[in-house]
Amino acid sequence: ASVKGQVLYDFTAEPGNNELTVKEGETVTITNQNVGGGWIEAQNSRGVVGLVPEDYIEEVRPAAVKDIFYCVSSITEKAFVDSASPKPLEGICCWICGRHRTSNGSDPWSAWNSDPAGGSSDNWASNPEGTQTGTGAGDPWSSASHGHPQAYQGPGRADFDEWDDEWDDAKSTGGYGESESGEGGAIQRPGAHAPSMKISLNKFPGFSKSGPELYLLCKQFTKGKERLPIYIGEVGPVWLYPETQLDCMVADPKKGSKMYGLKSYIEYQITPSNTNRPVNHRYKHFDWLYERLLDKFGSAIPIPSLPDKQVTGRFEEEFIKMRMERLQGWMTRMCRHPVVSSSEVFQTFLTYKDEKDWKTGKRKAEKDETVGVMIFSTIEAEAPDLSLHEVEQKCEQFSRFTKAMDDGVKEILTVGHEHWKRCTGPLPKEYQRIGKAFQNLSTVFTSSGYQGESTLTDAMTAAGQTYEEIAQLVAEQPKKDLHFLMETNNEYKGLLGCFPDTIGVHKAAIDKVKEGDKLVAAGKITSQDKVTMAKRASTMSYSLQAEMNHFHNNRIYDYNRVMQQYLEEQVKFYETIAEKLRNAHRQFVTL
Amino acid sequence: ASVKGQVLYDFTAEPGNNELTVKEGETVTITNQNVGGGWIEAQNSRGVVGLVPEDYIEEVRPAAVKDIFYCVSSITEKAFVDSASPKPLEGICCWICGRHRTSNGSDPWSAWNSDPAGGSSDNWASNPEGTQTGTGAGDPWSSASHGHPQAYQGPGRADFDEWDDEWDDAKSTGGYGESESGEGGAIQRPGAHAPSMKISLNKFPGFSKSGPELYLLCKQFTKGKERLPIYIGEVGPVWLYPETQLDCMVADPKKGSKMYGLKSYIEYQITPSNTNRPVNHRYKHFDWLYERLLDKFGSAIPIPSLPDKQVTGRFEEEFIKMRMERLQGWMTRMCRHPVVSSSEVFQTFLTYKDEKDWKTGKRKAEKDETVGVMIFSTIEAEAPDLSLHEVEQKCEQFSRFTKAMDDGVKEILTVGHEHWKRCTGPLPKEYQRIGKAFQNLSTVFTSSGYQGESTLTDAMTAAGQTYEEIAQLVAEQPKKDLHFLMETNNEYKGLLGCFPDTIGVHKAAIDKVKEGDKLVAAGKITSQDKVTMAKRASTMSYSLQAEMNHFHNNRIYDYNRVMQQYLEEQVKFYETIAEKLRNAHRQFVTL
Repeated sequence: ASVKGQVLYDFTAEPGNNELTVKEGETVTITNQNVGGGWIEAQNSRGVVGLVPEDYIEEVRPAAVKDIFYCVSSITEKAFVDSASPKPLEGICCWICGRHRTSNGSDPWSAWNSDPAGGSSDNWASNPEGTQTGTGAGDPWSSASHGHPQAYQGPGRADFDEWDDEWDDAKSTGGYGESESGEGGAIQRPGAHAPSMKISLNKFPGFSKSGPELYLLCKQFTKGKERLPIYIGEVGPVWLYPETQLDCMVADPKKGSKMYGLKSYIEYQITPSNTNRPVNHRYKHFDWLYERLLDKFGSAIPIPSLPDKQVTGRFEEEFIKMRMERLQGWMTRMCRHPVVSSSEVFQTFLTYKDEKDWKTGKRKAEKDETVGVMIFSTIEAEAPDLSLHEVEQKCEQFSRFTKAMDDGVKEILTVGHEHWKRCTGPLPKEYQRIGKAFQNLSTVFTSSGYQGESTLTDAMTAAGQTYEEIAQLVAEQPKKDLHFLMETNNEYKGLLGCFPDTIGVHKAAIDKVKEGDKLVAAGKITSQDKVTMAKRASTMSYSLQAEMNHFHNNRIYDYNRVMQQYLEEQVKFYETIAEKLRNAHRQFVTL
Repeated sequence: ASVKGQVLYDFTAEPGNNELTVKEGETVTITNQNVGGGWIEAQNSRGVVGLVPEDYIEEVRPAAVKDIFYCVSSITEKAFVDSASPKPLEGICCWICGRHRTSNGSDPWSAWNSDPAGGSSDNWASNPEGTQTGTGAGDPWSSASHGHPQAYQGPGRADFDEWDDEWDDAKSTGGYGESESGEGGAIQRPGAHAPSMKISLNKFPGFSKSGPELYLLCKQFTKGKERLPIYIGEVGPVWLYPETQLDCMVADPKKGSKMYGLKSYIEYQITPSNTNRPVNHRYKHFDWLYERLLDKFGSAIPIPSLPDKQVTGRFEEEFIKMRMERLQGWMTRMCRHPVVSSSEVFQTFLTYKDEKDWKTGKRKAEKDETVGVMIFSTIEAEAPDLSLHEVEQKCEQFSRFTKAMDDGVKEILTVGHEHWKRCTGPLPKEYQRIGKAFQNLSTVFTSSGYQGESTLTDAMTAAGQTYEEIAQLVAEQPKKDLHFLMETNNEYKGLLGCFPDTIGVHKAAIDKVKEGDKLVAAGKITSQDKVTMAKRASTMSYSLQAEMNHFHNNRIYDYNRVMQQYLEEQVKFYETIAEKLRNAHRQFVTL
């Protein structure tokens, strides 16, 4: 049975790209939903086949509820039914519902780098509507899995939220080493935009067209009790750190169901260290939290994307485990941040007492007006104002560093990815073949009919088996060490991907302050406004410095830990092999 | 300047094989001498270009002595002149003189396997003239380097011996892992025969058309003092082993020169353990010895080919070292053999007192008539005659075993070859990249401007350097362990490659005995002859059994030793890596 789709928006094919021109309201036949990269293949009424952005097409279904049941629950149900014997989840759901949630594969640094003085909202120019082009489907460490705010789809999804459970987009694939397309595999072009409907729902005030002037020139700040103090510590400006660092544990994923069992989802238990009382949340609640944090702090603090829905793991259990591990990593990072962790919205998420409490907190957070660049209005630096030169210098320094680190981190990810492939693919196969060759020769020797060579043949068989065991050790090792090295670097890649925006806001502010005299001359602002702008740019700089110092502190901790862990496991690995070979060696007769 | 060649024999091109038909006496232009596989590319007077067997063409040169000087010495001189700064020897000489000495790439087992009952000289049917098809030029472990008697060019070379020094055919290439053509690279077809001139010079009596009946039906054996007794030991029939096993050391390769310094060669010093007095020999003397041993013992004892002239090593020194190592291996194997080591010819080679003594011994050995199948006439087994059934059973058993071991050894060589490539190619490159990635990130960290992270950055740099060191360890390791495993298996591949012939002689003898009644009925032999034949076949079987027991004994010793050595080095390798990583780990701060 062919799947029909209704065209939601006009789309004009670009010549030579195998695309199909469609008109709003047109009905097409969906011929291939597995194209990937945000595209589907469709056939129009005249029989012409070509690619259309998947968001431009809505699948034609008889009735909404039944559809969703078909689209999500039945598949999910099937997955659960089959969960006793884990089966690949590959390609389910996302290819059916067509509502992906993947990152944009483009480099967040690119726009900004090409115009280093531009900054601010210009950074978004290359992709203002958050084009949903899925990339790296097979590779959890491609950009898809450490998305950038840019890639975040925003509240346009809200309509479907009730139906959008954890299993949406559960396009999992096999292991890190089996990338099918990689970053280069996705079909992308600047012209392929998401539906304009979504633009209107874009809610990132920090990156709105208004830019940092909203804060710089604000006549009066909204009165609130929020205050984000900055102190001068040993390393320079620092946030106010709580005496006890908050921590939390994400655990115990449980299947829940709704709609009389027609719809199922996974609920995670989160236990914060301050109350030690577990609360339950679904992935979509984490998503909501991320959205709120990004809205509120995004201009001052890099808020890393949530672990992407496209996570590793061929099987259901692995999928849940991986997502939980990454949610834990994300939550830990948020808990460690003194500003984020002490925010009301974060505390609400972690410590709500009951459903009513949660709903109240949710509503309140959604109404919060101290969002976007206005977060700077709550910052109070107990330090003398910085000159524009100092502000600019710091900003440049941080942008250089974060760009350089982004390159370094990507290098490790690339190399690690290659190494993962080798360790799980050709290398163990080779050790296995060596092992088999020894054993085969031993078998031949056994058939010699010559007496008294059982010591040799037993030893050779044991040596062969040892190499087969080594093959297994090699194949399993990446999960024990490289995995954490990759996860950490992946987290940092995500975090660093937020900096072009954060720094961009600062660069835009600097530009605005530089324009000061001109603006005064043109009568657009008063001289007092100019002084206020400079002062506020200084506050922004303190904020950026405090954030960088926080970043450095965490970075040193994280890399020290992960390198140590990596080397420790590597030592164990080589020692285990040496020990196994020593035992094999011992079986031969010393001549 | 184009090289002209004179056609020595008619050759008719096979259609579709890119060959060129040439007539005896015709002059052609040699357009490509580097075709390989025993072919050269030539152009006839009509401009047609195609392949011709290289032995069919003689290079046109002005005068003989000068030619040879040009062909061999000048090149050799050049190699020596340049030896201060070692340069590749690749492709010199053999491509110029055109007189290759390479093994035939075909499987010695193939002919025999396709006709298991055939045996004897039929074994040679597929290649009766010792076609010289060079194979595996780039790979010291391809069949080229563990040649088989079949490939031996025989005394047809004698004419050129004075001019044929060690540097002939010194086509060396780079390392085990860099095979350029492999076994599949040679052009071969059954029709491409060497010049018939060489047939007449074929001197392997053991494999002559007469077959084992020469011995089986011999009326009277030549009277001589040679006696090769066989005893029944614990493991069955065994040769008489000397009380002290002979050993010898091949060392101290020295350049010598002749012809007023126009011609140079390498002389090796061989010191046998019985006299402890060194004698000098050039490669061609080893070659002469091999020839004599093959003539004399080849029917009863597998005489492995000398290490091929095409040995490993890009540079002169490496080339000499490798050849010496392999000559040592060959000599050690010969010394270990009770029959070979106690033979007059072998003793002459090792213990001659002066030039005159050597020349006398040489002449005597060349006149020896107890060669080929007649070696069996010297064998005296102190045991009851075996029935034909027993003889047949033993023969079948050994043929099965040697074939199976040949397969097993080849498997190890194939796997080892692959492993060598990986260990010297992609794997160290990857470790180097890992090391560089760590160091690069460390450099970025150093640029942070954040205080107090030198412990981390120093440790990360050290970790990166450690992985670079590991890269080097990985790349160098094969020379320390895999090399010996490969050399031993390579030696065994060569040894096993002799068995189809040795066993073939026995199978032919068995067939002859089976024909006994028919031959008596036809009046071709007497009844007494028939009885004698059966008795002599029994003697042959004892000889084969003694040889197999010798083989097994050596095999157990060799494999026990090489496996032990391999594992020992492997243990050291992994322990070294673990230790290096432990040191790197220690530099990080324990959290």
